[in-house]
Order: sequence, then structure tokens, then C-alpha cells
Amino acid sequence: MTDFFTHHRALLDDALTALTTRKFWTPFPEIPSGKLYGETARGDGESAWQALLGKPFDLPDHPGIGRVGAEVSPWGLDLGITYPAADPDTLIAAAEGAASAFAEAGVERRVGALLEALVRLNRMSFLLGHATMHTTGQAFAMAFQAGGPHAQDRGLEAVAVAYAELTRYARDAVWEKPQGKHAPLVIEKHWTLVPRGPALTIGCNTFPTWNGYPGLFASLATGNPVIVKPHPRAILPLALTVRVLREVLAEAGLPADAVVLAADAPGEEITKTLVADDRIAMIDYTGSTAFADWIRANTSALVFTEEAGVNSVTITGTDDFDGMCANLAFSLSLYSGQMCTSPQNLYVPKDGIETDAGHKSFDAVAEGIKAAIDALLSDPDRAAGVCGTIVNPDTLKRVEAARGAGRVLRDSAETGKGRSATPLMCLAEGESGPQDDECFGPVSFVVPCDSAEDAIARAANIARRKGAITAALYATDEALIDRAARAFAQAGVNLSVNLTGNIYVNQSAAFSDFHVTGANPAGNASLTDTAFVAPRFRRVMIRRPKTA
Amino acid sequence: MTDFFTHHRALLDDALTALTTRKFWTPFPEIPSGKLYGETARGDGESAWQALLGKPFDLPDHPGIGRVGAEVSPWGLDLGITYPAADPDTLIAAAEGAASAFAEAGVERRVGALLEALVRLNRMSFLLGHATMHTTGQAFAMAFQAGGPHAQDRGLEAVAVAYAELTRYARDAVWEKPQGKHAPLVIEKHWTLVPRGPALTIGCNTFPTWNGYPGLFASLATGNPVIVKPHPRAILPLALTVRVLREVLAEAGLPADAVVLAADAPGEEITKTLVADDRIAMIDYTGSTAFADWIRANTSALVFTEEAGVNSVTITGTDDFDGMCANLAFSLSLYSGQMCTSPQNLYVPKDGIETDAGHKSFDAVAEGIKAAIDALLSDPDRAAGVCGTIVNPDTLKRVEAARGAGRVLRDSAETGKGRSATPLMCLAEGESGPQDDECFGPVSFVVPCDSAEDAIARAANIARRKGAITAALYATDEALIDRAARAFAQAGVNLSVNLTGNIYVNQSAAFSDFHVTGANPAGNASLTDTAFVAPRFRRVMIRRPKTA
Repeated sequence: MTDFFTHHRALLDDALTALTTRKFWTPFPEIPSGKLYGETARGDGESAWQALLGKPFDLPDHPGIGRVGAEVSPWGLDLGITYPAADPDTLIAAAEGAASAFAEAGVERRVGALLEALVRLNRMSFLLGHATMHTTGQAFAMAFQAGGPHAQDRGLEAVAVAYAELTRYARDAVWEKPQGKHAPLVIEKHWTLVPRGPALTIGCNTFPTWNGYPGLFASLATGNPVIVKPHPRAILPLALTVRVLREVLAEAGLPADAVVLAADAPGEEITKTLVADDRIAMIDYTGSTAFADWIRANTSALVFTEEAGVNSVTITGTDDFDGMCANLAFSLSLYSGQMCTSPQNLYVPKDGIETDAGHKSFDAVAEGIKAAIDALLSDPDRAAGVCGTIVNPDTLKRVEAARGAGRVLRDSAETGKGRSATPLMCLAEGESGPQDDECFGPVSFVVPCDSAEDAIARAANIARRKGAITAALYATDEALIDRAARAFAQAGVNLSVNLTGNIYVNQSAAFSDFHVTGANPAGNASLTDTAFVAPRFRRVMIRRPKTA
Repeated sequence: MTDFFTHHRALLDDALTALTTRKFWTPFPEIPSGKLYGETARGDGESAWQALLGKPFDLPDHPGIGRVGAEVSPWGLDLGITYPAADPDTLIAAAEGAASAFAEAGVERRVGALLEALVRLNRMSFLLGHATMHTTGQAFAMAFQAGGPHAQDRGLEAVAVAYAELTRYARDAVWEKPQGKHAPLVIEKHWTLVPRGPALTIGCNTFPTWNGYPGLFASLATGNPVIVKPHPRAILPLALTVRVLREVLAEAGLPADAVVLAADAPGEEITKTLVADDRIAMIDYTGSTAFADWIRANTSALVFTEEAGVNSVTITGTDDFDGMCANLAFSLSLYSGQMCTSPQNLYVPKDGIETDAGHKSFDAVAEGIKAAIDALLSDPDRAAGVCGTIVNPDTLKRVEAARGAGRVLRDSAETGKGRSATPLMCLAEGESGPQDDECFGPVSFVVPCDSAEDAIARAANIARRKGAITAALYATDEALIDRAARAFAQAGVNLSVNLTGNIYVNQSAAFSDFHVTGANPAGNASLTDTAFVAPRFRRVMIRRPKTA
């Protein structure tokens, strides 16, 4: 049996350090380069991808009867892959069957196996890139990063937080209480780490691995079996993950059924049955607030969520107008606004702003951003590479509906590749309107405000009321920035100020950025803070007098 | 403004070390001795206590109109103390009014003030002993310990865990991402610690400070204002606590209304109105499962509970029969079984056990424990000193009802002081019966079992199903102890093995024992682990490109 823990000890130590310093760190290169991943990595990934298409996906010894799977790429390809299908009861029974051995195997064995799994997943990043691209509709470069190394970073972060917490307090102690003139009381104590119980990870369509790994790896590291329920349109990235995990667990002498796949078909989802089963002790969920509400109403499990929100950009001034417009153009275009971090509402003073290029009227600000989007997407290949495709056909309906919501400042169009839509920008005048709710997809609303202060207040207010994962601010007045920082902190939303270069409000880096604060309605969990991990296990003591 | 943090830094550091080692440690002596507390401490405490009786309790600047208070000591004294009364809306508004200044004061200022408050409370331990004695009905020695130093230990533990968590991750970071041949991206990040929001601490009648301090101090340390809602029969210990806290907060330049007292009258409790108010973000509750269920159904706040349970003793053998009987006699008698840690069910093989005094039949085991109780309580003063009084008249009704539940092995009687009842022991034959539910008070059931294994299985099973905070085991077979350890760990209950000396299953020491595991129905929170503290605040980031 391989000692994965010793083998990966240095990796874990580096991760533990990175957690606390919050500086840049990653062991998983984000660039899809043969120099970093091996000269044959690109070709191997392509071959492995082709070999999966049109075939039953092999998950050795996985419980289930029959097959399910109907993934069709938003880029146009029918994947034709089928996965083992099992009813919820069978899956939960399998997970429960693995629970004792998995719990009692101990921290080091589990954590070692998870580190090995992450390293193996990293080596497969090209394959994961293809799998992510054709299930989420992202362009390959993004799919490689978000589906591969960035997701692996988030998984590693969860493992590191779990390891830190599992080892935080002594597991054994000799408690010696003085008794005055008498001999002291001496009690030996030992604590067993007891997992909370079977966990359910409900994957999303857009970032199946990036959003799925934190809960998955946190639950596994703390000793809980996990049922991985992918979105029926994005099974493959999580199926590959489950396969690697089951392989490594078995090699580590751990029960493979500590991770099982709950694949299902669109329209015949088994999610609700799994959620409502009282054997499920924890649920990690990324998706709509409506379904999060349903989960909360139908389970007594501990629920960790990332839900809907309305992200904002507040524009009050800049000393780099072109840089600002270019930066926002990319943020609005990237993956056609289908990121939980994509901006939606742009709050701009109706009297315009001061910039390095002189005063810019409200219309000139909107025009500047529009022009930057047009420039960014002028080349069709580049447009498809930035925007990717639209993963859910309903999003196209939302774009269509939004066209009627206000004056169109920039119209959405197709890129020419796959099911696509470039950013739509609409004017949203008035105190309330379409800007008051999440409009998931390539839709933004430019909202005229009375003043810079009003713009900040409205952006902070929508975050507080409707939730927000990101907020951006452009400002040159440091006192104004301080006031905005306070307002957005009170609204519980992370704020990015004056981004103009090659860093975007959409981006959230593991080991540094906590993703979602848990402090507004956009989610109750933060990736990956202590509160996300600590409740996943309990300590149970045995104590007895020490014998001489 | 006093720098309490610097002043108490060494205390905090010692507490932080103790947290991780789980060895014996306390800065607050548990012995009510003039040598430890000052030669005049006992007399000063007595005078301060007398000075409170029959008067309005002074809480300077506390919100409210009118007065409330109807505490009558179970020892026979009408306290005649009244407290400021305020409606829930006024209290929540006051707490909310203090929130911003309290949050923004920062970790060190808040933690310093809380440490100072604990040290002042410690100096008042004789007064707190009287206040606890005459609201909970405990005897003075116990009331001093549990209401004073042991509660202060638990408060300090919560502050230390909070401080560790608040400072766990860097508050500022420079994130420098390499960009190949280009200059690196350099982003400055800062995190604001954002409290979750107003907290409600619902005190219990039996241990108002010991059970109240962990949530109270954890919420305050993490920056949340707290509304302290005492049990209407046990207001004074928490009123004294609130007064000290408000004094110290003011001296530290912090808003006194960060702690307010929600005193109410029996039959006119304002608890439900407070619980159901959606401005309340967190609730700490100790009490019945029925009311815990009501809370969960009527709030979206984060709820931390200690609820009902059925604690057990499993007796399979001993090499110190007399020591075992004496130890159990004390555990069953102490505070007349009104501790959340008091044993209730005694599981004994029907064919008896092997001991250092030879084979003991089932009846001989029960008789040995009965005789030890009789001996312990033979002196009336000592009986009153161990048993204290019965705080809730309903408990006497339960004792009466239990008399009819099975053959009485030892009858309950009065001690002669106050409203009292010594332990009742009943035989509970059959697979199910009165032993299946909590019977809070001086009632135990001796349950004949098929074998040692059956006894362990039944004790673990009741813990799993009905909850349990403690379990005790007497055994001489190490293999059996190992199997029992596993069974009780899986049932999520802390296990004490072969206690025969001056340490009792009822006792839970701060900085070493985690009180309640959170892993069975006896409560969802563990005092004081990371999960109890970490969700009480959030981190919100501001990031911006570093300027050259």
C-alpha cells in the first residue's frame, strides 16, 4: 500500500503555509503548455477525450443497474457517453457501507489519497479541459484552467483546511489536576474524529469541478463518504474525478464506494430524492436560490450553498479610461456572463465622470465600454474564445427578454461558433427595474445614478438585498474608496478596485481569495474558510484514570 | 482608554496553548478560599449579595421602561430583585445601534475588554456563588464553582478560540502572480472581519453562566452584539455578568449596548418574540428539545443548541466495586441529577458482574450503589450540600411519576433544606419503558441486560437515538473497552471509563473536555470547538492593483 501522505507531505505543507499568508501560490500550472505538462500531454489529452466519446464510461465496481447520459456539447457535438445509473437508495447504501472503514482509516491515509488524486487529476488537465469545454460550453483555454488546475487548487485548498482543522487540537492528552497536598488526579484522554455522515455534492452546469471540488474534497478529507450528483448536462468532468478518486482510494486500501456517482437524465433527476433522504448529513449545492430554498425546506442536513446574486460595477472616475473599458469588456464577455462572478449592473453617475481622458458623460462611459466589447470580439475566433457558448438554451430567452427591458446600448449577437450570444447592454433607468434581479447570462444593465455616493449606495444595497459575489469599483478619490470599502464590507461582498490590467473581477484565486463571503444572500458558505470545513466532523472523547 | 489587550496578553497566550494541548489549565481557582481570592473576598461577596436583595438591580444606561423580576430561591428566600424591562424591539434596536462601532473597533480592543471582564467576574466569584445558589438551587460550593470559575473558564475558552480564528488567516496580503516574461501582476488585498449580526443567548435555569458564557463570549469576541435572555428564575447571575461587561466595554471605548439584558417574568416570556425576529442572526440555546424544535422552525438564524439526552452508565465489571459505587453515588446525587451530564440509565448484565469483591449479582450491584448513596447522604448537611435543591417544581412531579414506573430500588426523600429530593432508583425491565426518554432530575433506572455486550449496545443505542452528553463504562476487559469505545464514538457520546476516585462523569473541564459532541441529538454544538465559533463572523475582501 503506497504511503501517499509521506509522498505528498511537502505539497501539503506548502498548501498549509499558503492558506495563512493568502499570497499567490499554486502547484498546478494554469497554462496548457507541453513544457509544463509534458510534451505529449496535449495529444494524450485529445486522444483520451476521443476515446471516451460514444461509449459507456467505465467506472469499475460502481453500484448501479443500467446506463444514463445525454450530454450534448453547446459547441455542437453529441458526446454519446453513458454512465452507470443507480437509484438513490442504492447509492446511499453504498456510501453508508463505506463509511466505517473510511472514517477509521485515519487522517493521514485519507488526506494522502486525496492529494494523490489531485495530482493525478492535474496530469489529466487536457482531458478535463475537453470534458469541461463540451459540457459547460466554455472555450478550451478557459475550460482547461477552470475545469483543471484552478479546480484542483480549490480541491487542494479544501484538503489543506481540513487537515489543519483535523490536527488542530491534541488527539491525546494527559490531564493532571493538582489536588493540594494529595496526589494529582491524572486522566488520560483520547479523541476520535467522527465524520458527520454521508454528504451530497450537487454539481452545477457551468463549473462542475471548480464549484464541486471544495465540498467534495472537504467532506472526503474529514472522513465522510460523498455522493456526487452532477448536473445532467455536465456529468463527464465529475465522472472522471470520481473515477480517479475511486482508483486512488482502492490503492490506498480505502473503500472505493466512499465516492459514488449519481448520474441522471434531464427531466428525470434524482436530486430531490437524495436531498430528502434523512441519511444524508451534508449537502453542498451551487445553483439557483429557488432550488436552494427547496433544499433547506426538505432536509435536516447541514447545507452549504452558492446561490444567485446581482454583481455590480460602480464607476465614479478613473485615471485609465481605456484600461477600465477594456477590463470591463473582458469581464462582461468572458464565458458570456455565465460566471457567478460576472458583473451585471453598471452604476454610473448620470452627470458622468472625470477621467484621464477628460470628462466623460454617462453616455460616453457606456459607449466606451460598448466599443471595447466590440473591439475585443471583432475577430470571430477570438469572440468564440472569449465568450464560449451558451450552455443553457433558457439563457438565450433571457437575452431576448432583456432586449425589451430598456434602451439597448449594445446588442447581443452570435459569435458564429456553437450556441452563442455576445454581451447585451441595456439602459436601466428608474429606481427599480430589471436590474433588481439576477439575469444570468450575457446581459448587463447600465444604471444612471444621482451621484457617485448614490451609485455606491445602490450597488451595496442590491448586494445586501439580493446577494452578490463580486463588486467592482472605479474611483480616484481615496476618501470615496474608503467609504465604498465600508459600504461593500457591510453588504458582505468582496470588492475589486480599479482593475485595468490582466486581472478581472470575475477571477477568484484559491489560497488567497475567499470565494463568496457567506455574508449576503448569494450563498451561506465561503470557499474555503474554516466554517466550511470544521462542522463536517466531530470529536468524541474517551477518558479514564491513568494507571500507575 | 485602558489597553486591556496588552495587559492580558499573557493570559490569552496561555489560553491559546491550553486549547491545543487539552491539558489541565485554568487561571481561575475553583476553591472558594481567602488564600486564593483574598482574605476579605468571602465577606465582601456576602455583603455584596445582601446589598442586592430586595432592590432594583442597577444597570446604568440600559434601555427599557419599567421593572421585572420574581426570583425566589429554591432554598426559601424571596430575592425581591427587579431588573430593567424592555420590549424585544427596543432591545434589538439597542443591539443594532451598537453593532457598527462594536464591529469596527477591531479584534484586540474587543478581546482585551472581554478578558478584563472575565478577570473582574472572577474576582466576584463569591457574589456569583450566592447569586447562582439562590437562582439554580445548587449548594454554595457547587454554585461557586459552576457559576464562577468554571463558567469563567468556559468564557475564556470561547474568547481564545475566537481570537485564534479571527487571526488565523492574514488580514493583508500582497498577491504577486508571475506573468512569464512580463512584469508580475501585483494585487494588494485586505480583509475586513464582518460579524454575522445580533445574537441571542437564551439562558437556562440550572447553569445560567456556565452554559451561557460560551455563546455570549464567542459572539462578542467575533464582534456581534448580544441580547442575553436569562431564564426568568435565574436572571441575577447573567444580570451581574451583563453589568460587568457593559462597564468594561464602556471603559474600553466600546458601546455598552453591545450587551443588553432581556429580563422577563415567568409566564410572560419574550423569548419567542426575540427568536422570531429576523434581525436576530444567531441563537445560543440550552434547554428542552421541544423548544429547540420550536426555535428551528421559527428562525432563519444560525442556531447552536444543547438539548435533552439520556446519559448512561454501563456496568460490566470493576476491580474496585466500592470505589465504583461511591463514584456513581456522587454522580447520581450531585445537584439532584439536574445536570445535563447526570447519568440516568444504569445498564447492568442480569447475571451480574465480576468484581474485586467477587461476583456481584444484578441485585447486589443495584444494592451497592443504593447503599453508597445512603452513606453519602446520611448526614443531612452533607446531603443538602451534595443534592442542593430542586429548582423546578415540575421535577418533583417527575420523581413522583417515576416511582410508579418500576420497582423502587431506592426511594427519593427530602434533605430537610429547601425544596429537595434525593435520588430515586427504579428497576426498568423490558426492552422499552421509562428509560427510553429523558427524566430530568434525581431519577435513575437500573436496566437488566442480557450480557455486557448487550448493555453496551443498549447504552450506545439510546445515545444515538435520544442523544446523550455523557456515558460511563465500568469494565476490566480491555478488548471489551475497545469495542465499547468504538460503539460510543459512533453514537457520538463522550465516554468515561472506570471512574472511581475524585473525578466524576458529570464533570466537563474547559480547555480539555469538549462539552457535547454535536454528533447526536443532545445538541448540535460542541463547547468550545472551532465550528462553534468560526461561523459567527465572515471575511470580506477589498483588492486593488498595487501602485508602484
